[in-house]
Formats: sequence, structure tokens, C-alpha cells
Amino acid sequence: FYFCQKHKVLAASSVQSQKSLWMTDPITDIKDLEKNPDSMKTKMELLIMRIQGEVCRALEKEEEDKKFVVDRWIRNEGGGGISCVIQDGMVFEKAGVNISVVHGHLPPAAIQQMKSRGKNLSGKNLPFFATGISAVIHPRNPYVPTIHFNYRYFEVENEDGTKQSWFGGGTDLTPSYLNQEDCVHFHKTLKVACDKHDKSYYSRFKTWCDEYFYIKHREETRGIGGIFFDDLEEPNHEEIFKFVKSCAESVVPCYIPLVQKHKNNGYGYAEREWQLLRRGRYVEFNLIYDRGTKFGLFTPGARYESILMSLPLTARWEYCHQVEPGSKEEEMVQVLKKPRSWV
Amino acid sequence: FYFCQKHKVLAASSVQSQKSLWMTDPITDIKDLEKNPDSMKTKMELLIMRIQGEVCRALEKEEEDKKFVVDRWIRNEGGGGISCVIQDGMVFEKAGVNISVVHGHLPPAAIQQMKSRGKNLSGKNLPFFATGISAVIHPRNPYVPTIHFNYRYFEVENEDGTKQSWFGGGTDLTPSYLNQEDCVHFHKTLKVACDKHDKSYYSRFKTWCDEYFYIKHREETRGIGGIFFDDLEEPNHEEIFKFVKSCAESVVPCYIPLVQKHKNNGYGYAEREWQLLRRGRYVEFNLIYDRGTKFGLFTPGARYESILMSLPLTARWEYCHQVEPGSKEEEMVQVLKKPRSWV
Repeated sequence: FYFCQKHKVLAASSVQSQKSLWMTDPITDIKDLEKNPDSMKTKMELLIMRIQGEVCRALEKEEEDKKFVVDRWIRNEGGGGISCVIQDGMVFEKAGVNISVVHGHLPPAAIQQMKSRGKNLSGKNLPFFATGISAVIHPRNPYVPTIHFNYRYFEVENEDGTKQSWFGGGTDLTPSYLNQEDCVHFHKTLKVACDKHDKSYYSRFKTWCDEYFYIKHREETRGIGGIFFDDLEEPNHEEIFKFVKSCAESVVPCYIPLVQKHKNNGYGYAEREWQLLRRGRYVEFNLIYDRGTKFGLFTPGARYESILMSLPLTARWEYCHQVEPGSKEEEMVQVLKKPRSWV
Repeated sequence: FYFCQKHKVLAASSVQSQKSLWMTDPITDIKDLEKNPDSMKTKMELLIMRIQGEVCRALEKEEEDKKFVVDRWIRNEGGGGISCVIQDGMVFEKAGVNISVVHGHLPPAAIQQMKSRGKNLSGKNLPFFATGISAVIHPRNPYVPTIHFNYRYFEVENEDGTKQSWFGGGTDLTPSYLNQEDCVHFHKTLKVACDKHDKSYYSRFKTWCDEYFYIKHREETRGIGGIFFDDLEEPNHEEIFKFVKSCAESVVPCYIPLVQKHKNNGYGYAEREWQLLRRGRYVEFNLIYDRGTKFGLFTPGARYESILMSLPLTARWEYCHQVEPGSKEEEMVQVLKKPRSWV
């Protein structure tokens, strides 16, 4: 008992000591986090609070013009989130780093979607808890790629009281122009994070990523991939949490070097036009295919501004746009048509 | 028999005589159209060919800069279409007037969708025929509204050989700024077209339109409505065809006066920004909710360029954009939040 008390005290002080890393107060009351230091809910919330702070501060260092605007929002149905946004900056045209900690009851459509992926759920209105960090960074310079990452933890309670819980997530890169070195750096950094936990992860989750971020009607991927996984429960929650932590911590080293390298590249009208067309494709993927966007928008009381933060500030659609043979644009499209191995 | 022959000859010469009205040759061979003058397939194809020609020519008269580019495409799985597009014109930033005449087998997802609207279909791979005209006109000037219209005829054959067929369609307007006179003119012109056929049509289809073009997550309609209907089979195909004809013929008088009235209005940066934000909403509706877009994209061998022609050349998404109280922008949003009666 004494040990347990002591442990709690330690945890409590460590929660307080993390404050300086965050963008604002967590969604769950700090006292409640302190009371349940070993709960996966607490551990995930503290992880994503810290990652949000680290990523935002690393991006702010590269942005010369603006700071993140921090929006803390509460959801009537339970929980809330923290959205950090830079809009119309010199380096980042739109950058959103969002966390959410929500609970409530799953709408039937969401239960249906989960069942269709093989979840064994029964009942019509199951209590759920979901927490995650989700970010999309759209830089202004067409030579700096767009990055997306998302790490989440999910719990659902069946009608008979049994609980299911799992992790999902991933990090992926969407350049407008192909730079081999960048792709190798990005994928290598992800592989290192994966390899620490399971030597099979990188290759499995790289393939999964290429399959998931696929714009079916165009027969091309959204970008040059990365990693993606969902419904992860094995070998156990502790191990997966450590893996998710490594992945989330790898975002800054994956991405910031690419921003630094290209943010001052010269570019002209044609490159900007191409970037806007690519952003149109990004919008197509997110609104037509992305599970997270759909799940979000169809959840009652969803904060659509946070969900649609992933959309670029501007996008463009040209009828029957064709890339010129032998051009840099064609080089990019070839990789999207046929995903490559990068490491 | 003689009468029938004579009738066919008349029909044949009348098909040939319509050539000058079209943008290019029809999808179905002219000889086949001549052979089946009384078939609803023929009548619909000839109607939409003529409407495509009329609408394109009326728009070209207003466009000072460009002519429609005409693309005739053939679908491997059966049928094809004609896409007419103006892009980056002085008056029309993007204008697409598309017809399609396709046949093949319905994919299971499409059958499921139709069943969920109450269609009594059985089987897994049902032969279908679909023909229609679909257009979206995005003008450059923020004071000229975007218009969309679509008129279509659909046939599905059940496994037991029984056939179901129905009509669908509508015309609706999406202004960036509210102009009461324009809304009244637009709705009145539609009401006149409806009233010729059934005094209950306008009010039923106006309500249906407001319900259909609804961006659920934003709790606002896409525009100021118009008419929308689907699954129309009663009282009989001949009567509905006449009604559809009246609606399709009302597009030019509904819209062209608004283009003429506003195409030279003065506007500045703020109006353009607002227009682009509204176009972002347009994209959201089309990619997340629109049945036609989904049906199109999920049909094997779909020509996505024609389906996505409805998307604007440029669109914009700002995080948490707020309209100013008392502004013209707020006036517009209020109508989208609470659809009005216009006639």
C-alpha cells in the first residue's frame, strides 16, 4: 500500500512537471490523471500532450512569421480536444496539430464500420473512449513535402461489459516533387523507430500505408507513404504503447530536416500550380476515403473544424490535367502509381 | 405497318436534322437511334444532346474568352459520354456540361445503395442502363452564382427479367452573395416549368432539394436550392419525360439572365476570398455526401475526370473562419442555415 501511495505521489509530481512541455492544460483534469497514472488512458493523454508540444515548438522554430494559435474545445457529449493551428504563415501555409480525448457512445454507423474490419462488437450504442494526436502540415514552398501523422488509442465496451481496446496510427509524407534523399531519410527514420520494437513492423506497416493512402479512382497513392497500422493489440498494450511512443517521437526527426533543407528553395508559378493540384488530390483522399475523417464527421457533436483542419488552405482541380513526359511532375506521378522501397 | 414505317422515316430524318444542335455525334450510333425512335433511351439521349448544345452555346455567348472544349469518351464496360469544358475563362472559371450514356452491370455497392432507398432489386450483378446530363458552372465573378443541374434516366433489369426504370434530376443555385431578386427569378422560372405538369411538383421538389443539398456537419445547405427529385416513375414515363424536358429547357432562362446581370460587377480581394471559401463547402458536399459522385466514382471503369468536373478550379479552407455580424457574408449564411420560400 505504501509503495502504491508513493508511486502515485511520484506520478503526480511528474504530471505537474510536464506542464512546461504542453501547449495548454490537458483535457482530463490533472488531478484525475494523477490518480490513475497506470491507466492507458492517462499514459496516452500525457504522451500526446507532450508530442503536441514538441511538434508545435519544432515547427514554430522554422516558421518565421507566426506562432500556433491554441484552441481548447469541450465536446458536449464528453471530452474535448486541443487544436493548434498556424494559418497563412511564411513557411507553413496551414499547419494543424490536434489532440482529442473523447468519450461517449458509438453511433451505429461507427459500430458497423468497426465490425466490417473484423471487430467483434455487439449492441447498438456502445460506450467508447478515444484519444489521439493528429496533424497535417501543408508548407507553402512546393519543395517542402506535406506531412501527416496520427497516433490513437481506442476502447469500446460491449453490452456484456467486456472491453476491447486497440492502437492505431502512422506517419506519411506527401511531396509535390520527388526528392530521393528526402524519401530515404524519412523512411529510414521510421524504420529505426519500428525496429526497436519488432523487426517485422516497418515492412508490414509500410505496405499497409501504401494500401491505405490510395486514391482508388485515380489509381495512385496520396504520397510516398510511411507507416500505417490499426487494430493493434498484440503482444500487449504496454509493448504497443512503447512502440507508439517511439513512432510519435520520430515525427520531429523525420520531418524538420526536410523543412530546413527546402523552405528557402526557389520556385515559380508552374511549381505552385502543381502543388495546388496535388493538394486537390489530398482533399479527394481525405473527404472520399479517409476513415478517420468519416468517423469524425459522422460522430454526433464532432468538432468539424478540427477534423477538416487537415484540408489545405488552397487547392485546385483542372479538368484532364496531364503531366509532361520527362518532367519533374511526371517523375512524382510515377512513384504514386507504383510505390517504391526506400530502405 | 405502313404507318410505323413512315413514323420511323420521319423520326430518322428528324434525328439527322438535329445534328446542328449538338456539340458532337451522339454516343449511340445515329442509325440505332433512328431504329428505336419511341424507346425512352433514344428520347432521353436526343433530349440531353440538344440541351447540352443549347446550354453550351448560351454560355459561350457570355464567355468572352474561350469556347467549350469537347471530349467524346468511350467506356470499356459499355457506352460513353461527351464532356464539354471551359476552364480559366474570363467569365467562367470552370464550366462543365457533361452527358453520359452508359450500360453494363451494377456493382454490389450500387445495388445496396438503391435498395437502401427502397428499390426492390434482387441479384448481385444486374444489367443497367443510365443516361443523363450533368453540369456545374463556376463563374469567376463572386456575384455570379454557381449553378448545377442534372437530368437522368435509369433502367435496371432484375434477375427474373423484370425491369425497373425511373427518372431523377434537378437544378440548384449556389451564390456566394445573396441577391433576393436573383433567387426569386430562379425559383419562379423553375416553378413555371414544374406547374405545367403537376401543381404539387415545385413545392415537393423544392423541399427535397433543400434536404438533399445539405452539408450535415456544418448544418447548412450548399446553396439556395431549386428543385431535386429521384426515383420518379408515376404517373407514367411519357408524362415524366415531358416534365424532365421542361425542367432541362428551363436551365438557360433560369441562369443566363443572372450571368448577364452580374458578370461585370466590381469586386475585391475580400469577395474573392469568400467565394473560394464557399467553393470549399461545395467540394465538401460533392465529395462527402453527393450520391451521384459516389455512384460515379465507385462504378468500375468510371471516367473520374467527368465526375470530378463538378469541382471548382480553386477552393479554400480556413480554420474556424467566422463571418462578421451584419456583413453580406453573414446574410448569405443565414439563408443557408434556414432555407427560405422564394415564390
